[in-house]
Amino acid sequence: MERILGIDPGSRITGYGVIDSIQGKIGFVACGVVKTSPDSPFPVRLNQIFDGINEVIQVHEPTVAAVEDLFLATNPRSALKLGQARGAAVVAVMQNGLLVYDYSPKFIKQAVVGYGQAGKAQVQHMVRVLLGLSGSPSNDAADALAVAICHANQFIL
Amino acid sequence: MERILGIDPGSRITGYGVIDSIQGKIGFVACGVVKTSPDSPFPVRLNQIFDGINEVIQVHEPTVAAVEDLFLATNPRSALKLGQARGAAVVAVMQNGLLVYDYSPKFIKQAVVGYGQAGKAQVQHMVRVLLGLSGSPSNDAADALAVAICHANQFIL
Repeated sequence: MERILGIDPGSRITGYGVIDSIQGKIGFVACGVVKTSPDSPFPVRLNQIFDGINEVIQVHEPTVAAVEDLFLATNPRSALKLGQARGAAVVAVMQNGLLVYDYSPKFIKQAVVGYGQAGKAQVQHMVRVLLGLSGSPSNDAADALAVAICHANQFIL
Repeated sequence: MERILGIDPGSRITGYGVIDSIQGKIGFVACGVVKTSPDSPFPVRLNQIFDGINEVIQVHEPTVAAVEDLFLATNPRSALKLGQARGAAVVAVMQNGLLVYDYSPKFIKQAVVGYGQAGKAQVQHMVRVLLGLSGSPSNDAADALAVAICHANQFIL
């Protein structure tokens, strides 16, 4: 059994999703978001991401992590912000002694929806179906669950 | 008295410099670099930056930190890497309860050399003069000391 923590990093909202992967079957454990205070200085917000991910790990005790890789944003300013947010999240995982796997957005969509150009709603729908959820998680939480499902697929299918 | 930790983040080499600032005078404490293993997976390298900066803080016990902000690199790929490295360094400082101040490269050069477009050699030279060093620190360590000196100037002059 692996308990997989999926993370979709963002400077405003970082999504997380935790699933169990047992002998080819996956099961939902938890999902949610770490929000940062828009009015706080940026270093404080990076620290909120670190603390938030750290707390998720303490509570749900994943055995491995998968983090969505960065797409090349058209706006360099937001790319640099996103990069720093991802660095904060990855380091929070590493400091807990977990291995981190990187997956590109396209690869994740291909693995979960079967189509690399899939939209947000399609990802949300497939995550709900694959995990048998009765409700829809938020976009960011669904993206994070998709990363976790993508990782589960690499080692089982 | 403030003991200022200056950081020049980079995914391969992160420079650090520590100075004391007492009643308008600055004194050299330490400087060096945190190198990451080029052959290691990127999350491991981010973690090496976190651990390295954390160790510098444990050893030299700064009271505040100043981190060079990112310039908008022409290459988006390296900008995203640099962003993640900066995130790892900033979070290492924040986790130690220190305040982090951000300074742009141009602002730092203006403060240390008096000229925002100054070259590496000029920065290195002025850092050496201002701190009364007998030898030249490496480029990355000199840049980190320059960030620290820049921060000292904001609150004394």
